[in-house]
Amino acid sequence: MLRRDDLMNGYIIWQDTDLFCFGIDAVLLAHYPSLRRGDNILDLCTGFAPVPLILSAEASKKGYPVRISGIEIQESAASCARRSVSENGLDDTVRIVTGDIRKAGEYFAPASFSLITCNPPYLPVGSGFVSENDSRAAARTELSCTLKDVVSAAGRLLKMSGRFAMIHRPERLPEIFARLEEYRLTPKRMRLVQPRVHEEPTMVLIEAVRGARSSLKVEAPLIVYENGSSYTEEINAIYGRNTVSGGDADRQS
Amino acid sequence: MLRRDDLMNGYIIWQDTDLFCFGIDAVLLAHYPSLRRGDNILDLCTGFAPVPLILSAEASKKGYPVRISGIEIQESAASCARRSVSENGLDDTVRIVTGDIRKAGEYFAPASFSLITCNPPYLPVGSGFVSENDSRAAARTELSCTLKDVVSAAGRLLKMSGRFAMIHRPERLPEIFARLEEYRLTPKRMRLVQPRVHEEPTMVLIEAVRGARSSLKVEAPLIVYENGSSYTEEINAIYGRNTVSGGDADRQS
Repeated sequence: MLRRDDLMNGYIIWQDTDLFCFGIDAVLLAHYPSLRRGDNILDLCTGFAPVPLILSAEASKKGYPVRISGIEIQESAASCARRSVSENGLDDTVRIVTGDIRKAGEYFAPASFSLITCNPPYLPVGSGFVSENDSRAAARTELSCTLKDVVSAAGRLLKMSGRFAMIHRPERLPEIFARLEEYRLTPKRMRLVQPRVHEEPTMVLIEAVRGARSSLKVEAPLIVYENGSSYTEEINAIYGRNTVSGGDADRQS
Repeated sequence: MLRRDDLMNGYIIWQDTDLFCFGIDAVLLAHYPSLRRGDNILDLCTGFAPVPLILSAEASKKGYPVRISGIEIQESAASCARRSVSENGLDDTVRIVTGDIRKAGEYFAPASFSLITCNPPYLPVGSGFVSENDSRAAARTELSCTLKDVVSAAGRLLKMSGRFAMIHRPERLPEIFARLEEYRLTPKRMRLVQPRVHEEPTMVLIEAVRGARSSLKVEAPLIVYENGSSYTEEINAIYGRNTVSGGDADRQS
């Protein structure tokens, strides 16, 4: 079922609820890297393009001209994303490509982006529940896009000193660092996301820089809820500008 | 100056304040791995042996027979440690070896320990302030013992399925994971230590298992202070059993 939601930042987003819906992870990812004037941005595994839409709104608010591309392997999701882009009047800013990131070199020039973002599938194949719905499975499980595929694409497509921002599961940290090193992306910032102050983190935000000197800054954790199930001030500040009403804020794919 | 402190666990510890004094990191490290009956334990870079002394007390409380060795490169520190061991009546349990962990194979049989602990120097050579006092410099800076030296020794001296517990600086995480992988130690648990709930972590506790399957559990952070400068309940529970009165709880070497 197609659903049209208000992104609360001046834009709307179309999603197909038979496929999957974006969650808090996409919103947190879109707010993690700091935008720069003139950024040329690529969002890998873009789905319904929540990250490009949020980044567009942020750039517009700052008055920064940016260009944003999104690549998505599922045509049905990419088609929804294009509909959102057009309806938001963003055809000059955001371009959605249907394609496989393993062949990203066919669509994009090497070393051409200043910022690459990715909210990839979190689960290695064979590691757990796979949805009977193929589209949902692709969004959650590394069927057509592994961590290595994502990092390798970022390593090839980023300019020197370009930034790569990703959200992933904390249990994948050793492998994340190993892949980043393999593709000469140096982790510079990391932030764990915890549901509550005394709970285990469920997500991790990472920013790596191509060709940078080693020096990781581990930031204070981002806490999602306080006093039971109220959002913290920080999450409200993020969502107040960018949430989808009725969005799937608790998605832990 | 030699100083005799009460470890608050039934034991005393001798330290030479001209060298360095152990801090909260050693105490947190000693409480991180869970002890098992019959453990054969080695503490690398043992200094005045706070970790062996705390582990001895914990084992005794549980009624677990254990054997503990500590290796320290500075004879003056090792000699203090031996004095503490004897005065605590632990000569049958704890053995302190003066030696260089890079030559650990000369003192210990390969694959002979079930648990190895280490609170190593945190700072790479050339990365900052080096104490004019050589002994303090060795305790803080990787002059005679790098992260690679530590992990390599643990990898050679641990039995299969043996545990390696270390405390280190969060900014070294990418290198820690890389070295663990290099020596086939699989990170299984990791816990960041934060001064306060909304502050950046200043230390990280890691437990790796030799030859284990990959699956890292990132635990909820350990928070040190609350309401200004009071210890949290968890830190009080740890220190209540094992602190040194007047110990240097804020050491961030």
